Amino acid sequence: MQRELIDLFYSWGYELVIPPLIEYLESLTTGVGTDLELRTFKLTDQLTGRLMGVRADITPQVARIAAHRIKRKGILRLCYMGNVLHTLPQYLGGTRNPIQMGAEIYGHGGVESDLEILRLTVEALDRIGIKQVHLDLGHVGIFRDLVVQAGLSSEQEYLLFDALQRRSHDEIKWILQNNNVKARLLHMFLALVNLNGEKEVIIEAERVLAGSGVEQALVTLKKVAVLAEKYLPSLPIHFDLGELRGYRYHTGLVFAAYILGRGQAIAQGGRYDDIGQVFGRAQPATGFSMDLKELITLYEASNFRHKIYAPWSEDVNFEREVARLRQQGEQVIYGLPGAINNSQELSCDRELVLQAGQWQVIEMRKLGRG
Amino acid sequence: MQRELIDLFYSWGYELVIPPLIEYLESLTTGVGTDLELRTFKLTDQLTGRLMGVRADITPQVARIAAHRIKRKGILRLCYMGNVLHTLPQYLGGTRNPIQMGAEIYGHGGVESDLEILRLTVEALDRIGIKQVHLDLGHVGIFRDLVVQAGLSSEQEYLLFDALQRRSHDEIKWILQNNNVKARLLHMFLALVNLNGEKEVIIEAERVLAGSGVEQALVTLKKVAVLAEKYLPSLPIHFDLGELRGYRYHTGLVFAAYILGRGQAIAQGGRYDDIGQVFGRAQPATGFSMDLKELITLYEASNFRHKIYAPWSEDVNFEREVARLRQQGEQVIYGLPGAINNSQELSCDRELVLQAGQWQVIEMRKLGRG
Repeated sequence: MQRELIDLFYSWGYELVIPPLIEYLESLTTGVGTDLELRTFKLTDQLTGRLMGVRADITPQVARIAAHRIKRKGILRLCYMGNVLHTLPQYLGGTRNPIQMGAEIYGHGGVESDLEILRLTVEALDRIGIKQVHLDLGHVGIFRDLVVQAGLSSEQEYLLFDALQRRSHDEIKWILQNNNVKARLLHMFLALVNLNGEKEVIIEAERVLAGSGVEQALVTLKKVAVLAEKYLPSLPIHFDLGELRGYRYHTGLVFAAYILGRGQAIAQGGRYDDIGQVFGRAQPATGFSMDLKELITLYEASNFRHKIYAPWSEDVNFEREVARLRQQGEQVIYGLPGAINNSQELSCDRELVLQAGQWQVIEMRKLGRG
Repeated sequence: MQRELIDLFYSWGYELVIPPLIEYLESLTTGVGTDLELRTFKLTDQLTGRLMGVRADITPQVARIAAHRIKRKGILRLCYMGNVLHTLPQYLGGTRNPIQMGAEIYGHGGVESDLEILRLTVEALDRIGIKQVHLDLGHVGIFRDLVVQAGLSSEQEYLLFDALQRRSHDEIKWILQNNNVKARLLHMFLALVNLNGEKEVIIEAERVLAGSGVEQALVTLKKVAVLAEKYLPSLPIHFDLGELRGYRYHTGLVFAAYILGRGQAIAQGGRYDDIGQVFGRAQPATGFSMDLKELITLYEASNFRHKIYAPWSEDVNFEREVARLRQQGEQVIYGLPGAINNSQELSCDRELVLQAGQWQVIEMRKLGRG
């Protein structure tokens, strides 16, 4: 599964990077938000006494590589794959040790790179046999912009974000009224809760959010929707302006891919134009990631190969034949002397047998052992 | 590199397992020795308050899987690949975050499985372009046996082990005399320091260690040496009875592979028959491991492929041609509108060009852009 995905990313021009599993805490958590910092396991470095963290997300590491390490100007496409650790699972029953895999484009701010990431997400899922995907599209910039206008502290912002995620009308109202937020903005925040559904949502949003200064976000959302309809015509798209997944560091379009029967997204991503700023190089960025441990249960391996049992032999031609078969891609398992298991226990369906001076691969059932 | 090695392991019949990155500390460190426990990063679990560890070695995890999870009787061949973390680097300048890859055989105690692991090690290195390997062979059982006879406490054993690794005659003598170890055993321990060299070492060992009860270990060593000479005739083998690498949990034959110009072993392994015991299923086991981060600098990738630049186009046949090329294994990189980098910056050597109504892949230099 990993190699099929890396092959796919490669064929689209994405270069593989391998960031370290632990780093000094400030490197890992700079600019990524409180939530991710709380999810990061902390360790004390025995060499320096400094605090280190086990990464809880690879994207910020890749963003730093893109900002610092790679000097090339212009567009950079990177992909990665590796373990991450969370102090708490993302959701009830979730793993704390996902295998995160993703791809990112740095240096392009237009909707075409958003589209490329969307297409790559859908193609990656398709490649591992997940076909019936539907997509949620949102735009974090709308909420971010309204928060700035409302003049909320980052603590209040966090409470509001939390209330919005739980779609709790009353709490949103309570937080905003307590902070003397104007009624006009209050109604906009409350409207976000219900701004989800088909394409009409954008038209409704244009009406409700008119004059709020978030029009540009809606234009982007519309453009991406049009492109997605053209390039991914069979993909059902659902809009949700109250959904702020990836609010940790995302700034623009955000999306999540779902399949029927699973409440959790199987892939997610979006635009995070500011993350490089804290590393001294602000540049547009967009990408997606998914957890291979989630996907493995959905994966259908396509290629079946034979298993050939090769009982121990010191015949001069035995090793040559074994090597030849392995080079052809066959799986050849040595039978070791004195071992109690036989070919059936190893679930072999073929056996390497010396017949009339020739080593031959014979089906088990023809040898009466099937 | 990873996939070439996993393909190789697969072709020999090894099944891939993926143990978790963190586990409860007692699961990780049961039966693996003090050294490994000290190297393990500890974390507090926010859910249960219990102490957890980030694995410092994958082999004990795989041994537990072999003991518990897989019910099949008889021989089991497993391989794995993943991150491990060490509180301190293995040697000065070494990484604390190796990517460990290895293969193990469970359920066979004979020299043939030791040989299979040796051959697989050499073939794995060969597969990634490392040809001029030489091998160190030792047997941990000799030291273990003499320690039991000397009646040393585990603390004294650790000190002695440490002194022997540094080949410090004086310290060895001091420790043994302080514990009233008999002169006969003292001379045997001291002899271990110098028992290294060509095949003659085994003959010398048979003389020096006669009557010590470690004869069986020497017989095993001799048998493996004979088999290695037959199956790996071009591999230079060096014997070292004082070298106790993998003393953490190894019990029998141990080995390490070296190349010229590197002081550190590039792969190592051996027999550890007892590790399953603490998990309720003692069974013979032998295996090897290596750090892919060490090897990556030695790796020579063999397959070069073209990079094709595909400037943004809304032509009806453009996407079809891009998809076709990617399916053929080509790398095709979209040129995004408004991007400042061009094909040269992406180091593309081909470009997808519309000529006479046909999409064609043309060499850059023929387009005057090379």
